[in-house]
Amino acid sequence: MNVAGQHYRTIWLKANDPEVVQLIDQRALPHRFVIEEVGTVEQMAEAIRDMHVRGAGLIGAAAGYGMYLGMLAGMALTAAAERLRATRPTAVNLAWAIERQLARIASGGTVPEKVSLARETAEAIANEDAEHCRQIGIHGLQLLERLARGKSGRPVNVLTHCNAGWLAFVDYGSATAPIYAAHDRGVPVHVWVDETRPRNQGAKLTAWELGEHGVPHTVIADNTGGHLMQRGEVDLVLVGTDRTTYTGDVANKIGTYLKALAAKDNNVPFYVALPSSSFDWKMRDGLAEIPIEQRGPEEVKHADGWVAGEMVEVRLTPEKTPAANYGFDVTPRRLISGLITERGICQPNEKSICAMFPEHAP
Amino acid sequence: MNVAGQHYRTIWLKANDPEVVQLIDQRALPHRFVIEEVGTVEQMAEAIRDMHVRGAGLIGAAAGYGMYLGMLAGMALTAAAERLRATRPTAVNLAWAIERQLARIASGGTVPEKVSLARETAEAIANEDAEHCRQIGIHGLQLLERLARGKSGRPVNVLTHCNAGWLAFVDYGSATAPIYAAHDRGVPVHVWVDETRPRNQGAKLTAWELGEHGVPHTVIADNTGGHLMQRGEVDLVLVGTDRTTYTGDVANKIGTYLKALAAKDNNVPFYVALPSSSFDWKMRDGLAEIPIEQRGPEEVKHADGWVAGEMVEVRLTPEKTPAANYGFDVTPRRLISGLITERGICQPNEKSICAMFPEHAP
Repeated sequence: MNVAGQHYRTIWLKANDPEVVQLIDQRALPHRFVIEEVGTVEQMAEAIRDMHVRGAGLIGAAAGYGMYLGMLAGMALTAAAERLRATRPTAVNLAWAIERQLARIASGGTVPEKVSLARETAEAIANEDAEHCRQIGIHGLQLLERLARGKSGRPVNVLTHCNAGWLAFVDYGSATAPIYAAHDRGVPVHVWVDETRPRNQGAKLTAWELGEHGVPHTVIADNTGGHLMQRGEVDLVLVGTDRTTYTGDVANKIGTYLKALAAKDNNVPFYVALPSSSFDWKMRDGLAEIPIEQRGPEEVKHADGWVAGEMVEVRLTPEKTPAANYGFDVTPRRLISGLITERGICQPNEKSICAMFPEHAP
Repeated sequence: MNVAGQHYRTIWLKANDPEVVQLIDQRALPHRFVIEEVGTVEQMAEAIRDMHVRGAGLIGAAAGYGMYLGMLAGMALTAAAERLRATRPTAVNLAWAIERQLARIASGGTVPEKVSLARETAEAIANEDAEHCRQIGIHGLQLLERLARGKSGRPVNVLTHCNAGWLAFVDYGSATAPIYAAHDRGVPVHVWVDETRPRNQGAKLTAWELGEHGVPHTVIADNTGGHLMQRGEVDLVLVGTDRTTYTGDVANKIGTYLKALAAKDNNVPFYVALPSSSFDWKMRDGLAEIPIEQRGPEEVKHADGWVAGEMVEVRLTPEKTPAANYGFDVTPRRLISGLITERGICQPNEKSICAMFPEHAP
């Protein structure tokens, strides 16, 4: 999407030097826009591990480009694969992209042929990620257009949580794709952006990307969404997901469940946008089965932000206060209006999901 | 309650110099414990206006002591009243304490008599506030004891939002009073403390006061409570209120409604603790009638905390991002299990509330 009026992806081959990968170093956002050049597997592994890049789709694309860099450098592919795989061991897309590269490269004969296959595959992984998100945007757009018809020219108010934006993918994003599609076609839309404590991905990343693309938005404390829904100020809740069971239970950033409850209580539609790679085709019961990451307490006890040109971390609590930090929660399917995928919108139940993706049905 | 093992109120007459009022300057909490000496109406007005003291009960007590200081200095009482009243124009307890002092002082004859009446009245206002909170503690204790019986020695987990603690009153607090009562009697209790963005009163004040009194607690991001309730980690939600209609609708810090929804969805009892001075005897419909304060966006865009011995405010969002800041939300009575008052626990409906406070019934 656009940054200061120019189109960017989150990761790409350098225009005049396709042996170098360029990516947006997200650690500096929203305060500085930094493009990093990555020329080796080691550098790519660091970029993934230290979260210069983050988000399921983008991590997969980065791993794909990383394998290409390894092939270019004449590295042993198993070593490159191992180095990249170790960076974020639980990222499903990471392992998937590496396996896809290994299989594809193995099908080549000469080294130049293998280099060429690695490059094509890296580009294909990135392009497919972007294309899936674009399709999510097209399908979700219908929802926004329908809501817009009831608003006589006033903007459709969408509430989102965390960053399921283009920064988490290669382009478009998942939850943001319908928003960008609507905005670009002149459907008036305004986004309530949950700041998303403790890591503030909403305040930092979602606010930045919507602002750069010119989409009207307002940051709110995570406590605010229920009140807004009670007052009729939210027409649609639209979030992403880290993992969705094939029965329709949704694991997403902690706090999503609270917004789903408020949406239900106020008859506000609650949709989840996801590329089908986020479905888990083995898990039946999200609440019972999806493991919830517990992170260190320091993120809750502190906040980092910008002061006088510098990134500073301040402590919010008394020094010795204990804190707990759960990364995700599970929103049960009964609270969800629908799932927006690259193939269309399905209902949050096994029958509808498996009918749309029959090749994966368990 | 206790600070470093010693009992304090939030405001009191200096032990050997009853012409001076001492109070805890809450602006420095939780990082420094500062006791301020206040000797004039002007100083008390500043302490109220600049929020050295805050919270309905404590503001009332501070105004009572302020009128006493005015009487001591031989100030015109109407001038003292006007100066104090202007500090927080919407604080109901402030106006109430000033009126009570004016009426009481007027009943005196000589100046020394009036000084003595002013002092007695200031002490009475503070004592009654503390006593009401103590009674709330006694009534709420029954709830905690009942829950403790089902936990075979494991602590009762209470979730609270914002600071309805002794720092907001003269002593004990409202939502915290049952917690302190249980803890002091050896009923094992653990408190989940919502950090309460954007002003972080939970992370700053509730965490500090529970810690100083020795009550086990854990600070969490506001997003976390729903997940904890889904996992059976919350036995009771206990919050305060800024205003409660005589029909049982509760206005409290923004985000309270979301916790009430989660409590309902998980069959967790949700109680509101309040001295009867927080009832509004005119309003019927909380959602339609209670005005919700909108504050400046800067509180949402920033967080303040401590770094290297200094209080620092950092910006969390891009510089020009718009933000909205609603101070309160309304939890409808249908989500509330009961109201804990100084006279006992009543149901959140007109009949039960008016039966407990017949002298106020509209």
